[in-house]
Amino acid sequence: MVDDTSTPEQRALALGLDIPDYSNPPYGGRYGTMKAYHHTGRILMLSGMTPEGRDGVMLHPGRIGENVTIQQGYEAARKTAIGVLGLIRYALGSLDEVESMARTVCYAATTPDIVDVNVAGNGANDLFLEVFGPVAGRVASASIGVMSLSRGNCFEIVATVESKRDAAEYTRS
Amino acid sequence: MVDDTSTPEQRALALGLDIPDYSNPPYGGRYGTMKAYHHTGRILMLSGMTPEGRDGVMLHPGRIGENVTIQQGYEAARKTAIGVLGLIRYALGSLDEVESMARTVCYAATTPDIVDVNVAGNGANDLFLEVFGPVAGRVASASIGVMSLSRGNCFEIVATVESKRDAAEYTRS
Amino acid sequence: MVDDTSTPEQRALALGLDIPDYSNPPYGGRYGTMKAYHHTGRILMLSGMTPEGRDGVMLHPGRIGENVTIQQGYEAARKTAIGVLGLIRYALGSLDEVESMARTVCYAATTPDIVDVNVAGNGANDLFLEVFGPVAGRVASASIGVMSLSRGNCFEIVATVESKRDAAEYTRS
Repeated sequence: MVDDTSTPEQRALALGLDIPDYSNPPYGGRYGTMKAYHHTGRILMLSGMTPEGRDGVMLHPGRIGENVTIQQGYEAARKTAIGVLGLIRYALGSLDEVESMARTVCYAATTPDIVDVNVAGNGANDLFLEVFGPVAGRVASASIGVMSLSRGNCFEIVATVESKRDAAEYTRS
Repeated sequence: MVDDTSTPEQRALALGLDIPDYSNPPYGGRYGTMKAYHHTGRILMLSGMTPEGRDGVMLHPGRIGENVTIQQGYEAARKTAIGVLGLIRYALGSLDEVESMARTVCYAATTPDIVDVNVAGNGANDLFLEVFGPVAGRVASASIGVMSLSRGNCFEIVATVESKRDAAEYTRS
Repeated sequence: MVDDTSTPEQRALALGLDIPDYSNPPYGGRYGTMKAYHHTGRILMLSGMTPEGRDGVMLHPGRIGENVTIQQGYEAARKTAIGVLGLIRYALGSLDEVESMARTVCYAATTPDIVDVNVAGNGANDLFLEVFGPVAGRVASASIGVMSLSRGNCFEIVATVESKRDAAEYTRS
């Protein structure tokens, strides 16, 4: 158990999380026409994140209810959330600059009969709690089962974060 | 017809709306790893809301185009919007603290041939107009037909609201 | 090639874009219970936009993977983005009042096997880059394949924009 006085960066280290570095190569190098985030005031809006590493390897591609179990969906959601941490670091320089997770909309590729999409989404929520703690890590959220996600991923998170300081106070690389 | 000088709380009372109380038991008690809302500045971001009471009873579970009609979808959207009122009260203490509804994204579980998802969504829009009036109650919106929603609900709203005062000015319970 | 010193309005003119006028008739005249946008601080939240003109004629209605190709989806996304420009003009008076595109969530009606929804979505991203340039036009984004969209459209964008000035500084018609 990580003690309560530790910071998000310290907790991420203690958890041994393999957080992708979106500055090298720059995020836009792969995605071309889009950017990783928009930051205005203290509101940080992130691009959609999927459970794939920077090498493009996807965790549990496919569809929950078909070739992906709910438990695998949970694992994919957790990996997606680790990618979200990477976007946050890329935007703010450090996880310690997060005032609070604000809201996530979690999309999962599902079959029509899957009605516990939110259980898979907990894989992301649990990770945020572990890293940011029970106050800043608790996020307003919704989980939606959809037809298809980019590259055949089974999960995608669109996250909004509140930063500790105004956007203008961060030096962008 | 409710007169124009009444407040949203007075209108909700006059309409006889049964607005859920999300403070008792606390919202998080049921949803565990998530929170009901995030409030920063005057922007209040709510968690996804479905047409179910605090007892878990769902109105018209299923899928529009299969076992749920558009009219039933409209009723489910209205009930969902009443739940949104409950979240607003929980966040701001009173419906009278709403400066304006901002934006809703309305998700409905549908069959592929349903193309009037927005008609069902009007059940929510109409309710907001009745409670907040023609200016503050009018909301930017989008309606999306999806594969599945949590617990088999047929409708879900992700709402953003503008509050009259800054987040810091509200005392949280 | 449009030169770098031109403004978004000048670029839109040079590109010969047919941008819909959402003030005549007013947006709400058609959509009834909703509004075109909500503006608070410098954050402009737009309603969902589909690839249809103000006359209701849709570009490539249907479903990507069924009767709509990815290339047609790209064209529909571009037309949708031109509609977004119309909403921005309606909200801010001019495209030149855009500080930056912030975030788009792009929904496409797809078959289950379509995994390059984001390629269609580039039709919107590319248009924003052409009009607003490589900094302000670059948008955080996510692309989601869904079951159905209103009126049978194949594409819909929910866009958030950062304006140059606070909402209170714009005179609303």
